[in-house]
Amino acid sequence: MLAEIITIGDEILIGQIVDTNSAWMAGKLNEQGIRVKQISSVSDNRAHILAALKEATERADIILITGGLGPTKDDITKKTLAEYFDVEMVLNDDALNNVKRIFERYNRPLLEVNRLQAMVPANCEVIQNENGTAPGMWFDEGGKIYVSMPGVPFEMYYMLEEKVIPKLKPRFNLAPIIHKTILTVGEGESFLAKRIADIEDSLPANIKLAYLPKMGQVRLRLSAYVGDDLNIQEQVNNFANQITERVSDNVVAVEDIPLENVVINTLKKRGLTLSVAESCTGGYISHLITQHAGSSSVFFGGAVSYANALKEHVLGVKHETIKAFGAVSEQTVTEMVEGALREFKSDVALAVTGIAGPDGGSPDKPVGTVWIAVANANKTVAKKFTFVNKRMQNIERSAVAAFFMLITLLKEDMM
Amino acid sequence: MLAEIITIGDEILIGQIVDTNSAWMAGKLNEQGIRVKQISSVSDNRAHILAALKEATERADIILITGGLGPTKDDITKKTLAEYFDVEMVLNDDALNNVKRIFERYNRPLLEVNRLQAMVPANCEVIQNENGTAPGMWFDEGGKIYVSMPGVPFEMYYMLEEKVIPKLKPRFNLAPIIHKTILTVGEGESFLAKRIADIEDSLPANIKLAYLPKMGQVRLRLSAYVGDDLNIQEQVNNFANQITERVSDNVVAVEDIPLENVVINTLKKRGLTLSVAESCTGGYISHLITQHAGSSSVFFGGAVSYANALKEHVLGVKHETIKAFGAVSEQTVTEMVEGALREFKSDVALAVTGIAGPDGGSPDKPVGTVWIAVANANKTVAKKFTFVNKRMQNIERSAVAAFFMLITLLKEDMM
Repeated sequence: MLAEIITIGDEILIGQIVDTNSAWMAGKLNEQGIRVKQISSVSDNRAHILAALKEATERADIILITGGLGPTKDDITKKTLAEYFDVEMVLNDDALNNVKRIFERYNRPLLEVNRLQAMVPANCEVIQNENGTAPGMWFDEGGKIYVSMPGVPFEMYYMLEEKVIPKLKPRFNLAPIIHKTILTVGEGESFLAKRIADIEDSLPANIKLAYLPKMGQVRLRLSAYVGDDLNIQEQVNNFANQITERVSDNVVAVEDIPLENVVINTLKKRGLTLSVAESCTGGYISHLITQHAGSSSVFFGGAVSYANALKEHVLGVKHETIKAFGAVSEQTVTEMVEGALREFKSDVALAVTGIAGPDGGSPDKPVGTVWIAVANANKTVAKKFTFVNKRMQNIERSAVAAFFMLITLLKEDMM
Repeated sequence: MLAEIITIGDEILIGQIVDTNSAWMAGKLNEQGIRVKQISSVSDNRAHILAALKEATERADIILITGGLGPTKDDITKKTLAEYFDVEMVLNDDALNNVKRIFERYNRPLLEVNRLQAMVPANCEVIQNENGTAPGMWFDEGGKIYVSMPGVPFEMYYMLEEKVIPKLKPRFNLAPIIHKTILTVGEGESFLAKRIADIEDSLPANIKLAYLPKMGQVRLRLSAYVGDDLNIQEQVNNFANQITERVSDNVVAVEDIPLENVVINTLKKRGLTLSVAESCTGGYISHLITQHAGSSSVFFGGAVSYANALKEHVLGVKHETIKAFGAVSEQTVTEMVEGALREFKSDVALAVTGIAGPDGGSPDKPVGTVWIAVANANKTVAKKFTFVNKRMQNIERSAVAAFFMLITLLKEDMM
C-alpha cells in the first residue's frame, strides 16, 4: 500500500517553518504497513496544487494533504479540491456546529468568514476537528483515498491517529501489523548488528527487523503482519526477548518511547525522585524531562551551574577542587552530583560538566570533553566522554549519555 | 528565478528524521530573490529519483538535491545523476585528496569503499566539501543548474552558503538583493499591519515588506533589488527607521537573529550578567541561551526550581508566601527573581512560574496561567500571562515573554 503526503502553504517554501508534520505522518503510516512514496511541499497556488494532486494520484493509493484550510483568502485547498473533483462547495451542518461550539467557548462573535470554514466540496465526508474550526475531509474517488487535514500540528495529530487511520484500515483491508521496539543506547548500529546476527538470520520471512539509529541511540524494531499465523505475537515477543537478553547492557526499554521517558517511568515505578546539576548542557536535560506532562512527580529540578561561582555556592563544590582539577574534571563532577543529592534532597542525581565548544578547548581537554556523574545514597559513578566539535551535538550527546548512566545505575540498584 | 529542492533518502519517508534542511535552504534562496516552487522528498530508488529530476526540470531553473551521497550501496544519487545526464562516472583527484586528508586527520585506514566517494559523474564540476568526505556536484545542463549536496546538515549549510550561492549569483545574473529585518515581540501581525499601514502604503514598488510571524514574535522584513537605484540601501534604512520608531515598544532588534541572541548581545554590550529561576519553563530558557557559543560570558546559570522545596532552599522563597498565595503568584515570582539576584549575584535576573498543563489547573488559575518577573538592583517587574492549554506552547510562549520583559527592562534602564 503506497501513500503520498502533500503539504500546502507558502510558509515552508519561504523557509519560515520546518515541516515536522510529514515525518510524523510518515512514521504513523509506516507503523500500519503503509509506505510513503513521496512527500511534496507546494505553494498556495491553484494550478500547482492541481498538478501535485494529479502526480500523486498516478503514484499512490492514499493521498494525505495538510494545510491551506485557514479562513483567509490565500488558503485555497478546499476550493481546489472541489475543482479537482469537479464538484460544488456545500455547507456542512456538523462542521458549522463545530465552528459555533468553538466560538461560543471563547465568547467570540461568529463572523461570516468563520462560517466559510464549514463549506466543503460536495463529494467529501467531513471528519470532525475536535481541536479547531477547520474540518477534515475524506474523499473516496477512483479507488483512491484523499484526506485533507489542517496543517496545525496538534489538530492534525489527533485527526490522523484517532479518525483517519482507523478509517484507512478497513477501507484497504490493511492486515493488522504488530511492532515491538527495543530501545538501545551506547552501541553503534553495525556493532549491534554483529552481536545479534544469528538471531536476525533466524527470523522467519514474515518478521522484519529494522535498525533506527538516532543520536547515540538505536531502536531495533520488529514488525510482522498478523495473517494466518495465529501465534505471530508470541513469536515476535520471543525474538524480542532473545535480542534483549543478548544486548541487555544496552537495552533501556522494550517499547517505543523517548529516552527521557524511560527515566521518568523508571523513577515513577520505583517511587524515586531526581535532581540535576547541569553545566555544559545548560538546562537541556531539565528541559527534556520537564517537557513531558507528569514529570513534576519525580523531578525536583536542580541547578544550571554555568558559572563556577554557582557550582560552589549552590552545589557546594569546593573552590580548591575547581582550582586544582578544573571545572571539567572527575573531582568537580563528583562534588556536583553529590552536592545536588545533598542540597536538593532527591533520591538520585546526575551532573554534567564539559566543554561544549566551539571555544574553551585545550590540548588536554579538547572541545567535546565531558564528565558525567550519577549518584544515589550508596554509590557515585563518574565517567569521561569525548564527543565531537559541534556545540549542539555535544549538548545532545551528553544528555543521552547521562540518561543512560542514570538508567544503568537504577538497574544495578535493583540487582 | 525558480528553484526546486529534492531531498533523497528513506529516512524522511519512514518518519525517522525531520527534514530541517529544506526550510533552511528555502530561506537562504529566498534571501537571494530565488523562489522555491516545490520541495520533494523521494526514496533511494533509481526510477523515483529520475522521475523527480524530470518533473523538477520542467518547473524550475535551479534544482538543489541533498542526500544519498553516503559510501554505502543504498546511496545511489551520484549513479542516478550520471544516468540522468547519460555520462560515465570518473575519479576526481581533488575529491580523492579531500577524502585522504580527512582519513589522515582521524588516523584511520582508507578502505576501497571510501575511495568510491571520489567518483563523480563526468559532466559535473566538483564542489569541495570542507566538512566531510562526500563531494558536492554542480551541473550546468540545458540552461539549468543542478547541485547535489550531502544531506548532513552542517556539511550542506557550509556548502550552500559559501560555495553554491556565490556561484549561482553570476550564473543567473541575480540582482543583488538587500534585506533589513525588524524583530518585534508582543503584538500580532494584523495589529502591527494596522499601526504601520501608511508607511507600508508609501513604499515604492521596488521595496517589499514581508510579515514573518512565529510564536509571539513577528519579523518585518524589507527587501529590495539593487538595480539602477543607487541609493536603495539608504531608502530601505529610512523606511526601517520609520517603522522602528512607529512600533518602538515592540521592536527588540533591527537584525535577523533569534530572540535570545538579542538578550545575549544586549547584556554583552552593557557588560551585564544574567541568572534565572525557572519553574514551569523547566530549563528551557537556560537551554535557549546556552545553546549559543559565547553565552557563558553573560550567563551565570540559575535554578530549575520545579519543586517548591527548591524554590525555598535555593532561591529563598518564604514557605509562608507559597502557602498563602500559591507557587503561581505575583508574590512567589517576585521572591524567586529577587532570590536569583541575591543568591547568584548577577546584575539582572528573570523568573517564571506557571501551570504548563495539561494537569494542575483550577478555575482561579487555569492551565496556561504564568507569572513572569524580571529584576535588577533598582527595579522588579512582575506580570501575569494567560496562554493556552498546550504544554509545550506554554513553555515556549513563556520564554518569549520573559525575554521581551528582560529586553524592555534593559531598555528602560538606559533612559
